Amino acid sequence: MKHISGGVCAAEGFTAFGMHAGIKPTSMPDRNDLALIYSDVPCHSAGVFTTNRVKADPVMLDIEQLKDGQAQAIIANSFIANACAPEGQETAKRETVALANALPVRQEDVIVSSTGVIGMRLNVEAIEKAIPTLVAGLSKDGSDAAARAIMTTDTVKKEISVEFPVGGKTAHIGGITKGSGMIHPHMGTMLCYLTTDAAVSTEMLKKALKETVRKTFNRISIDGDMSTNDSCVILANGKAGNEEITAEGEDYDSLLTAMLEICTYLARLMASDGEGASHLITCRVHNADSEDKAEVISKSVINSSLTKAAIFGADANWGRVLCAAGYSGADFDPSKTDITFSSKSGDLPVCKNGRGLDFDEDFASKVLAEEEIIINIDLNEEGNEEAICWGCDLTYDYVKINGDYRT
Amino acid sequence: MKHISGGVCAAEGFTAFGMHAGIKPTSMPDRNDLALIYSDVPCHSAGVFTTNRVKADPVMLDIEQLKDGQAQAIIANSFIANACAPEGQETAKRETVALANALPVRQEDVIVSSTGVIGMRLNVEAIEKAIPTLVAGLSKDGSDAAARAIMTTDTVKKEISVEFPVGGKTAHIGGITKGSGMIHPHMGTMLCYLTTDAAVSTEMLKKALKETVRKTFNRISIDGDMSTNDSCVILANGKAGNEEITAEGEDYDSLLTAMLEICTYLARLMASDGEGASHLITCRVHNADSEDKAEVISKSVINSSLTKAAIFGADANWGRVLCAAGYSGADFDPSKTDITFSSKSGDLPVCKNGRGLDFDEDFASKVLAEEEIIINIDLNEEGNEEAICWGCDLTYDYVKINGDYRT
Repeated sequence: MKHISGGVCAAEGFTAFGMHAGIKPTSMPDRNDLALIYSDVPCHSAGVFTTNRVKADPVMLDIEQLKDGQAQAIIANSFIANACAPEGQETAKRETVALANALPVRQEDVIVSSTGVIGMRLNVEAIEKAIPTLVAGLSKDGSDAAARAIMTTDTVKKEISVEFPVGGKTAHIGGITKGSGMIHPHMGTMLCYLTTDAAVSTEMLKKALKETVRKTFNRISIDGDMSTNDSCVILANGKAGNEEITAEGEDYDSLLTAMLEICTYLARLMASDGEGASHLITCRVHNADSEDKAEVISKSVINSSLTKAAIFGADANWGRVLCAAGYSGADFDPSKTDITFSSKSGDLPVCKNGRGLDFDEDFASKVLAEEEIIINIDLNEEGNEEAICWGCDLTYDYVKINGDYRT
Repeated sequence: MKHISGGVCAAEGFTAFGMHAGIKPTSMPDRNDLALIYSDVPCHSAGVFTTNRVKADPVMLDIEQLKDGQAQAIIANSFIANACAPEGQETAKRETVALANALPVRQEDVIVSSTGVIGMRLNVEAIEKAIPTLVAGLSKDGSDAAARAIMTTDTVKKEISVEFPVGGKTAHIGGITKGSGMIHPHMGTMLCYLTTDAAVSTEMLKKALKETVRKTFNRISIDGDMSTNDSCVILANGKAGNEEITAEGEDYDSLLTAMLEICTYLARLMASDGEGASHLITCRVHNADSEDKAEVISKSVINSSLTKAAIFGADANWGRVLCAAGYSGADFDPSKTDITFSSKSGDLPVCKNGRGLDFDEDFASKVLAEEEIIINIDLNEEGNEEAICWGCDLTYDYVKINGDYRT
């Protein structure tokens, strides 16, 4: 698949911008704190949101806004989550009104997102004041500024775009996302915005988004904490000129493949840029009777504090991996299970049929010194299903970042 | 209830000892690595074990050994878990044989426990060699040495004993336990040994142990990782001379109250001595429609990495508390929920009806500087059920300890 530049503006008809509206202190990794993504025509749209019982007000608003399957603009701020905050509902609503006054967009077609500290009032007056500047800044080059505006503790910007063939035409899809704490696989997802010019019905867009999120963002964990604000929204404006995708088939598969490609990239990037992370952990569970089982085990491993701390310490402590598989709730036979740690430096088999293997500690240190560590778990079951989840190690910096995030 | 000295030797007929058998390096908090608890007559016995699908070999053996409800001796080592290890089954068996040769005890009445690193072979020859010395050392003063012999990363010994009235007689009960990592509430429990001279049927002993563990050890979490070796075993030798407890009633209640008293003490001590911990976190969820719901929410909060890191940083970040309640899976109404942080320094209401309250940051810092932090969550439901769970903060030292535990 061909990677192209442009991020969320790579698709025809989309522009974006990001700026400092005065919500975020300038000490954050990027001072931009307000992002806008806009399509010059209304889009078919779908969203996946947090399953946390405590939902931020913008999330509750967006769920309503997307009921008609149509949206045209996304406004998002960082630093304040507008969750459990005074006047939260009113604040989110005021953002849609302000944007509808400044752009040719219906108030009902504005998606509102926030990320950051829970419980504090969002300075909506600052946002209202910034909106004219934000709208004036919209351009085809604006994805970078928008991607930076949704960062909180992220250390790198998360943006990608690709082109793909669909119905004899060339379509484009791009996405931006933010991490990097309060990230856990049982979530809807975190903040992620995808744009495409492919023509696709709302129904098929929903289906493709659900499938994509299941296999990408729902398979990462930074810290086991599911956010109140997780949102993943896709806008599709149909400008690629392909015949609208209204059913499964070659065109749908092509779109889904493109969505999986960019969301896998973004999910991996989120995991590797998890708060304080020094290693990306990829856990692949294979030769399983079902994909669900493989996923449950893989998630349990990437979420184990002890496994995460061992990877930080470059310690081939595979017992913690098997232990985490064991308490995952999945039905498997430990005495048939093999474990291998892998990285660019090679493969280190550490466990065969549920029992420890002798291995060279020096070679182990070399394998575990690499940035990406792959934990392979072979269940040796009859089936050949597999699942891959991504996480990161648990470091001093995670504790440091979260010991004084709010103050 | 009257606290007395003696630990697991406080009850009539019990002796104990602990020593260095050569399994643990001398750099561990205590060099003792092998413990023995012995009753001079066979006991009614019950055990609760890990629900992890990966179970250590001694755990699998003990489940068999306890099927007849009788036991007389407990041998336990620290540093090597004998889980997923070469010759694990044979090793555990050899310990029972060696002990039956050295003491007047049937091989079938020996309980074997191990705690420590998973996957490495336990040096059973060293244990066999040490057993004569271990047996010779048995005394009424031996609880201290035994309690120290099961410590791994624990920084304090965990031991308690009380006396209680039962059927017109005075009975005694004592316990020792170890933490302090791989501790999570969905477990059976960790290593805990209780001894009593109360006369009680195996059936009622099982019932009382299950109820006690549910309300104490199953309500703590250090790191969300459920061990392969969790075991809680009680021996009751009947030497107090009371009429055997064979049904619910006043005597059963008296025993259960004593068991809850000592296990609550031990559970709190385990939580406050969690790996790297600098604060004991007590989360009380009250005014709930059911105890189960209160427990699910409380466990989710004490297990939240972000909440734990906030307490480490003395940050009154209640949004993380409500967020963790929200993803617990429990059905509650966030907009009716109140949260207050409490400690010896006072009460700090931070959230009312699911929305943030203004509070004084200086006073907040003072409240959160205390060693025990209580998180009160009032669900304001019709019911008045409650549950209390205990955990600890997430610190640099947790990462340090677990980054290089094995090597």
